Amino acid sequence: MATNITWHHSHITRSDRERHLDQRGVTLWFTGLSGSGKSTIATALERELVHNHKKTTYVLDGDNIRHGLNKDLGFGPGDRQENIRRIGEVCNLFTDAGIIVLAAFVSPYKEDRDKVRALLDETDQRSIESGGGGDKGPNETSMQQSKSKTKNFIEIYVKADVSTCEERDPKGLYKRARSGEIKNFTGISAPFEEPENPEVVLDSKKKSVDECVSQLVKFLNDGGYLSAG
Amino acid sequence: MATNITWHHSHITRSDRERHLDQRGVTLWFTGLSGSGKSTIATALERELVHNHKKTTYVLDGDNIRHGLNKDLGFGPGDRQENIRRIGEVCNLFTDAGIIVLAAFVSPYKEDRDKVRALLDETDQRSIESGGGGDKGPNETSMQQSKSKTKNFIEIYVKADVSTCEERDPKGLYKRARSGEIKNFTGISAPFEEPENPEVVLDSKKKSVDECVSQLVKFLNDGGYLSAG
Repeated sequence: MATNITWHHSHITRSDRERHLDQRGVTLWFTGLSGSGKSTIATALERELVHNHKKTTYVLDGDNIRHGLNKDLGFGPGDRQENIRRIGEVCNLFTDAGIIVLAAFVSPYKEDRDKVRALLDETDQRSIESGGGGDKGPNETSMQQSKSKTKNFIEIYVKADVSTCEERDPKGLYKRARSGEIKNFTGISAPFEEPENPEVVLDSKKKSVDECVSQLVKFLNDGGYLSAG
Repeated sequence: MATNITWHHSHITRSDRERHLDQRGVTLWFTGLSGSGKSTIATALERELVHNHKKTTYVLDGDNIRHGLNKDLGFGPGDRQENIRRIGEVCNLFTDAGIIVLAAFVSPYKEDRDKVRALLDETDQRSIESGGGGDKGPNETSMQQSKSKTKNFIEIYVKADVSTCEERDPKGLYKRARSGEIKNFTGISAPFEEPENPEVVLDSKKKSVDECVSQLVKFLNDGGYLSAG
C-alpha cells in the first residue's frame, strides 16, 4: 500500500563507512611533472596498503579518467581546469565513501589544486550527505567530532627536475614535446607551479619507490588514517 | 638514485578488491518518476546491506551529484544527457573499485540508461585498468573468469503511476510543475520512457519499502553479489 511507505531518511554516514572499513576516507593527491614517478609511487603505495594493511583504496589517473569521465575534454586552459575540477569532485565522492583515494595527475596549476583542497576541506562535517545522522547517540556524535582531526586532502609533491624526468621519459612524451609535436607540455613549454605547502614532498630523484612508499605509510599511520580510531 | 626506480606496474585488480571486500562491484541503477521511491528504497537498501550484511556501498543521487560534479549542468536535453553520462562514468569507477553503488536518478530516457549499461558491460574483463594482472597465477585467472557471470549494471525500475507520485509529492515538485513554474517535468510535461527489460521491477504502490528491500537483497544474494565467490 502506498500509505505504508515511510519517507524518512536515515542515511548511512561517512563515519559508519569508516568504522566498517577501519580507516579514514582521504584523498592523496600526487602532483608533479610527467615522469616524476606519481603513478608508479601511487600504484606501489596501493599495493602496500591493500596487501599488507588490508585497506580499501582506489587509484584515479589519466588511464581511467581521460578515457572515461573526461573524454570530452581537451588540453586547452579551460578544459584542463574542468578536468581537475571533475577529478576533485570524484575524489570528494570516494573520500565520502570512506575510501583512500590515490589521485595521480600532473595538475601543474596551484589554483586548480587549491580548489580541490578547498572542496574537500568544505566537507568538515565528514559527510557530504545533506541528511543523515538523525539517529545518532551522543557517543557517536563526539566520535565524529574527534575524527575530524584528520584531513580530507593530502597534497603529495613528487619532486624531480625536468632533466631527470626527461631522461626517464617513460612514455616518450618529452621527445615529442621537444620536437614540437606536443604543444604546451608541462616543464618544456608550459609551467609547473610548485606546491607551496604540500603535506608531503617525495624527492624521487634521491629516493627509491620503496622509500617513498615507506614515507607515505608512516605519514598515514601517524596521522590516524589507517584505522577508524 | 634515479636509476633505482623501477617503472613496473603491478596494479591491484578489481578481483583483488572484491576479495578484500567479500562482494562484487555492481551498479544498482534505480529509475522511476520523481516521488516513486527511488531514493527512499536505495537508502533503506544501503542501510540493510551495511548494517546486516557488512557490505561496502555508496549512494549516488541528486544531492551529491547536482551540487558537485554536475553543478555546471542545467536541465535542457543536452545537459540531461551529459548529466547521466557523467554519472554512468562515476558508477563505472565505483564498480571497478568493488563497491555496490546505488544510483537513484529519474533518468527518463531509455537511450541514456542504455548507454550507461553499455559502458558498464564493456568492462567485461572486470577491470578498467589497462595494466594489471600480470602476476596472477592460473587459479586466480580462472577465478576471474567465473566471476564474470555477475553483471556490472542492474536496472531497477521503481514503478508507480503519475497520480500516485503526485499524491505523495514529497518535495512539492508536482505542484510546481502543474502551475507551470517547472517546465519539462517528467510525467507531467516531459516523457518517462519505461525500461523494457529491467532486471528488477519494484511496484512501490503495492509494496512497502521493507518488501522492496527484501526483494533486492534476495536478488543480490541469489546473483552472487554479496560475496567474492
